[in-house]
Amino acid sequence: MTTKNLVAQIEKKKSFLCIGLDVDITKIPAHLLLEEDPIFSFNKAIIDATHHLAVAYKPNTAFYEAYGIKGWQSLEKTIQYLNVNYPEIFTIADAKRGDIGNTSTMYAKAFFEDLAFDSVTVAPYMGKDSVEPFLAFENKHTILLALTSNQGAFDFQVKVSEGKEIYKSVLETSTQWANAHNLMYVVGATKAEYFKEIRKIVPTSFLLVPGVGAQGGNLKDVCTYGMVDNVGLLVNSSRGIIYASNGSDFDQAAAAAALDLQSQMEVILNDR
Amino acid sequence: MTTKNLVAQIEKKKSFLCIGLDVDITKIPAHLLLEEDPIFSFNKAIIDATHHLAVAYKPNTAFYEAYGIKGWQSLEKTIQYLNVNYPEIFTIADAKRGDIGNTSTMYAKAFFEDLAFDSVTVAPYMGKDSVEPFLAFENKHTILLALTSNQGAFDFQVKVSEGKEIYKSVLETSTQWANAHNLMYVVGATKAEYFKEIRKIVPTSFLLVPGVGAQGGNLKDVCTYGMVDNVGLLVNSSRGIIYASNGSDFDQAAAAAALDLQSQMEVILNDR
Repeated sequence: MTTKNLVAQIEKKKSFLCIGLDVDITKIPAHLLLEEDPIFSFNKAIIDATHHLAVAYKPNTAFYEAYGIKGWQSLEKTIQYLNVNYPEIFTIADAKRGDIGNTSTMYAKAFFEDLAFDSVTVAPYMGKDSVEPFLAFENKHTILLALTSNQGAFDFQVKVSEGKEIYKSVLETSTQWANAHNLMYVVGATKAEYFKEIRKIVPTSFLLVPGVGAQGGNLKDVCTYGMVDNVGLLVNSSRGIIYASNGSDFDQAAAAAALDLQSQMEVILNDR
Repeated sequence: MTTKNLVAQIEKKKSFLCIGLDVDITKIPAHLLLEEDPIFSFNKAIIDATHHLAVAYKPNTAFYEAYGIKGWQSLEKTIQYLNVNYPEIFTIADAKRGDIGNTSTMYAKAFFEDLAFDSVTVAPYMGKDSVEPFLAFENKHTILLALTSNQGAFDFQVKVSEGKEIYKSVLETSTQWANAHNLMYVVGATKAEYFKEIRKIVPTSFLLVPGVGAQGGNLKDVCTYGMVDNVGLLVNSSRGIIYASNGSDFDQAAAAAALDLQSQMEVILNDR
């Protein structure tokens, strides 16, 4: 998907909501456990109930790999269901991959070709030649970890070297890589005050923002400091939406939680 | 597997060789493509021909994920084959995972429980709470990326903050984490002179060393600076062994290449 199409979808739906499909089988409604593929059934119901309120879905691969081949099948069915039924949706494999050159190419093939995701999250620790193989895929997007939303972000990401934090070096350096126009970045909402500085380095790039809701981030602050002309934000919510209820009304409860966030986003978009 | 058992295997086999199973279907012998699962058939033949020369096998997950469910099945069959037939072998899932706490727990379950690997490689960028969930599994080993063997290692890993390089901060900081005794580290052989400094920080930890052979590292230098009383080294070779021939003699050619490395290791071990 092109960035232009993503922006058009945001403007049409008045939403920049991404829904994280981090599906833990111990947390889904009991009646779904009777289905042949409970995780896919759960995802399908969530997607059907919320697709008009969200512009992106983000399965985290860990939650699928934990169930081995069966989990990988659930992931494959989920992305196929999205691609066939809701082709306007931007899809994100939250996989946090990254390895030496030829190996990153294999990961890129796994997520961009075999599974046909629009984007994948990638860790920057191994540098340029671990990320550029992903960037070589046109109209596919590589979402690089910059400043994550967890406590451990303060261990290495904010260490200052040559006058700037490592996460800023990641942002700056990556803009020089081949096909850098295919880059987006992960920036946690728990650190909204950082967005101002980040926008000086990447003024137009899309930022994938976890940590609104369950992790304590504030939507309004993120938009104040992070929103740009082309919106440039995808705000993710996972648990707050998909586990809004664990009864038979789970999909409608998810839709209500998604509507709550989308309504706030619509106000913000209209107030620009 | 306990570290003690790994060391015992090293002393018995006079080898600290790890064989990387980075299997690209375009590079394996043509006659295997007629098999139901060419990648597993290839791995099985390589393992049968080399198990007496190597103490560890390291499938890189990228090469399996690139083939979707079929690839994941090949990976599962490979680890099962190793665990059933060669239980003394130390197994490494070279997956370079890492995510926020509950998600890392899912990855740990995927590799330590579902697939039953002895160890998994993990990226440090997201810090303590992204790594400790892996460390919670006793007699399972978390192999943290410190200084990798690729050119991109020089982008962020060697940046100096507070008087020391980031990779040294990763080493130092990680020794303070819960269950740090379950840590090993990835240190590339292309930078043998760094081992002296690294051993000051982690004097007894096992180091997984890629980059001998195809990537230009020198075995002798690595051992001079990196070897300790309990050996503390696993030296990996992938392409140099598994693609030693692409004819019908591929397994015997792999054994010859493995023997060449093991013989050098035996001399080094005997000369201690």
